[in-house]
Amino acid sequence: MMRDFTADLAARVTALKAADVPAPIQERAAQSVLDWIGVTVAGAAEPAASIARSAGDGGAGPATVLGVHAGAGVQHAALVNGVAAHALDFDDGSGWMLGHPSVAVCPAALAVAEEAGASGEALLVAVVVGTEVAARVGLAMGESHYRRGWHGTGTTGTLAAAGAAGGLLGLDQTGMRVALGLAATQAAGLKAMFGTMAKPLHAGRAAMSGVLAAKLAAGGFTAPLDAIEAEQGLAIESDDFRPEIVEERLGGAWGIENTRFKLHACCGVTHPAIDALRALTTDGLAAGDVEHLVIEGGPLVWRTCQVDRPRSGLEAKFSLRYTAALALCGRPTTPEGFTDEAVGDTEVARLQDRVELREVERPGFGVTLRLRLRDGATLAQEADSAGAVADAGLPAQRTDLTRKFIDLVAPVLGSAGSAALLESVTALPTARTVADVAAGTLPAV
Amino acid sequence: MMRDFTADLAARVTALKAADVPAPIQERAAQSVLDWIGVTVAGAAEPAASIARSAGDGGAGPATVLGVHAGAGVQHAALVNGVAAHALDFDDGSGWMLGHPSVAVCPAALAVAEEAGASGEALLVAVVVGTEVAARVGLAMGESHYRRGWHGTGTTGTLAAAGAAGGLLGLDQTGMRVALGLAATQAAGLKAMFGTMAKPLHAGRAAMSGVLAAKLAAGGFTAPLDAIEAEQGLAIESDDFRPEIVEERLGGAWGIENTRFKLHACCGVTHPAIDALRALTTDGLAAGDVEHLVIEGGPLVWRTCQVDRPRSGLEAKFSLRYTAALALCGRPTTPEGFTDEAVGDTEVARLQDRVELREVERPGFGVTLRLRLRDGATLAQEADSAGAVADAGLPAQRTDLTRKFIDLVAPVLGSAGSAALLESVTALPTARTVADVAAGTLPAV
Repeated sequence: MMRDFTADLAARVTALKAADVPAPIQERAAQSVLDWIGVTVAGAAEPAASIARSAGDGGAGPATVLGVHAGAGVQHAALVNGVAAHALDFDDGSGWMLGHPSVAVCPAALAVAEEAGASGEALLVAVVVGTEVAARVGLAMGESHYRRGWHGTGTTGTLAAAGAAGGLLGLDQTGMRVALGLAATQAAGLKAMFGTMAKPLHAGRAAMSGVLAAKLAAGGFTAPLDAIEAEQGLAIESDDFRPEIVEERLGGAWGIENTRFKLHACCGVTHPAIDALRALTTDGLAAGDVEHLVIEGGPLVWRTCQVDRPRSGLEAKFSLRYTAALALCGRPTTPEGFTDEAVGDTEVARLQDRVELREVERPGFGVTLRLRLRDGATLAQEADSAGAVADAGLPAQRTDLTRKFIDLVAPVLGSAGSAALLESVTALPTARTVADVAAGTLPAV
Repeated sequence: MMRDFTADLAARVTALKAADVPAPIQERAAQSVLDWIGVTVAGAAEPAASIARSAGDGGAGPATVLGVHAGAGVQHAALVNGVAAHALDFDDGSGWMLGHPSVAVCPAALAVAEEAGASGEALLVAVVVGTEVAARVGLAMGESHYRRGWHGTGTTGTLAAAGAAGGLLGLDQTGMRVALGLAATQAAGLKAMFGTMAKPLHAGRAAMSGVLAAKLAAGGFTAPLDAIEAEQGLAIESDDFRPEIVEERLGGAWGIENTRFKLHACCGVTHPAIDALRALTTDGLAAGDVEHLVIEGGPLVWRTCQVDRPRSGLEAKFSLRYTAALALCGRPTTPEGFTDEAVGDTEVARLQDRVELREVERPGFGVTLRLRLRDGATLAQEADSAGAVADAGLPAQRTDLTRKFIDLVAPVLGSAGSAALLESVTALPTARTVADVAAGTLPAV
């Protein structure tokens, strides 16, 4: 396995046909696309996205910049749709990938699907393929990759985007191995960027580089066929590269089964604490009761969400202290909780001063909350990431995601426009092309 | 210094004005551009370059794809001109950068200069700036960066390209720090790619990513201001990141003073052995005299040029065994020695079987050659990289580079066209714009 990881991965994903994808997996892909379109259309108004639109090569082409304009180049669209998708940090995540799959995979897949005239079903299969690559490469690269300072969305995401784009371009196994190699050698993204616009750039660059990798491979470019596991290959970015662990950890599951969607518009690492604190306030705890709150977490936590005193909404998304205070104060954790103004909320700021992040040695994203209350009582509470939803929970998840989608899209497209877009996204599995979905994101002129 | 490396670098390069650049440094920049244009115009015919042209977003814009067409997008031109420039592996190198400066810096600088309507002098200053960034970041990242498996042309090259492009865009110090950060988080390139088209892709990607970084910074994008030395910043790609060593190693020199040009069309790591063996044949040694040749080198050598039995001209450029045999047989080491046909030369192949690469622990690119001759004699010969030329050697170097330029360009542009191009490249220091140089690379229709 070790020696043939790239080959095995390429064989697996190139063999995948629409008929092989069970209905719940198709539904997961459809929900990924639904969620991605919502966060992208809303994110397109963020400064990171508008600057990226101006800075990229804006030439004409067959692709759509979601929420903005049609007729853009494929790589340009992949870049700016990826930046927009991740700008609010409200997109999905995967603990297998240690990053955000859809913001790397979907912008690449949609732009290539538009150029290729691919069907809605082909797009969904490409999303399944891309997320499969994300999970398998992410698991093989291991926790050390992220601990060392790599952002999986940028690194693993580039291979995932190449897988999705390569699937739509019909690459054979050798072509897919070349595409994965060309993606591996473009894979980049540093965690030092968290809290700045450079973080969403990782998603855009992953999507764009993945498209380039797949197109170069389709054109006959060469690369080593074992670039992930090769000496001086991608595995140099890991201290514990273990391709053999992939089967064990995934079992018979699909990569996309690990995708978790966000209902809080901030780094997923902060969510366990937010959820636990919200549960406590629902049970009657008031912000004013709390004298001191300690959050104990391992390096995956404190090396990710360590912003001590956020000065902007963007930094606030990566501050465990801020997000904990926000949750305790009962403020919304949707994008309105992470504007530059929200950071100036004095009640939240005062409570934040009573929150302490304590660094401990512990794997994973779980934390222990230790509260000391004004009445002298103490309280300890474990909080861990919620797992991805089981198949039985998919209908309820779709309901949640549809509400989130409308909340995000309606301010841009109006209620009629957002209902129409929702309809064409819902019809995607049987749509002859992806054109309606792409066009439906554009505001009426 | 450690804490302020990015800031110091940005301050240094943004302060640089044309009037501060001494004549010999200007001449070095002019020679870099001359050499880069020659290898790019010739390299544009290589498959790697033509595939990259087809795979990139080919939209309209103000930039020129050298030797092919005008009117391309800036990032597209940077990408494909970078790939073309490095496709023959005949471009310059720097042991401070541990990579190839001009193929990352010049494509970015020219494309941005075309869009900005910059003067020839501004282009040359940008090349000085980009090469300064390359040398300083490369030295700080240290030998471990390269040993671990990173290709400096792709990684450090991205920051160098951002420096050059940022200079032309007039970034202030803060803007330059952002641009360097956005370049750092896009920096990529694995040494596993050597011997495939993915290696020249590193140059193209560095140029394109550098342009994107500079344009995003100019547009107001944000990034950490200390992204090179920051925790979880670029320095994670090094085991011995030592910014404090930069002053010591550079002394009062300019980064571009370390640029070395190639007269052999293969990996620079093979050049010490080639030069030493050619000197021996000049002194009367014949290929037939050699029974066995051992080349002893350290990891920078055997982890770079270890291709045992090349199957293509591209692989042959990274084979110490092949290049040594080529030199001993007196074959040309210009591009004609590295075609797929040349690899089939039976005399070279037979001699290659008598060459052995021996891996020893030793820093740097130097090798020891141990020859056993048919007459029983043995011979040991040290060979190290030739240093960059001193100022006094610049006129002679220009003569060599001019000959190389004409050899490369005349088959594409004819003798009148190549003479005209040489004239406009020579006139660059006083040219009002770079338009004549760019247009002069295009074959007459």
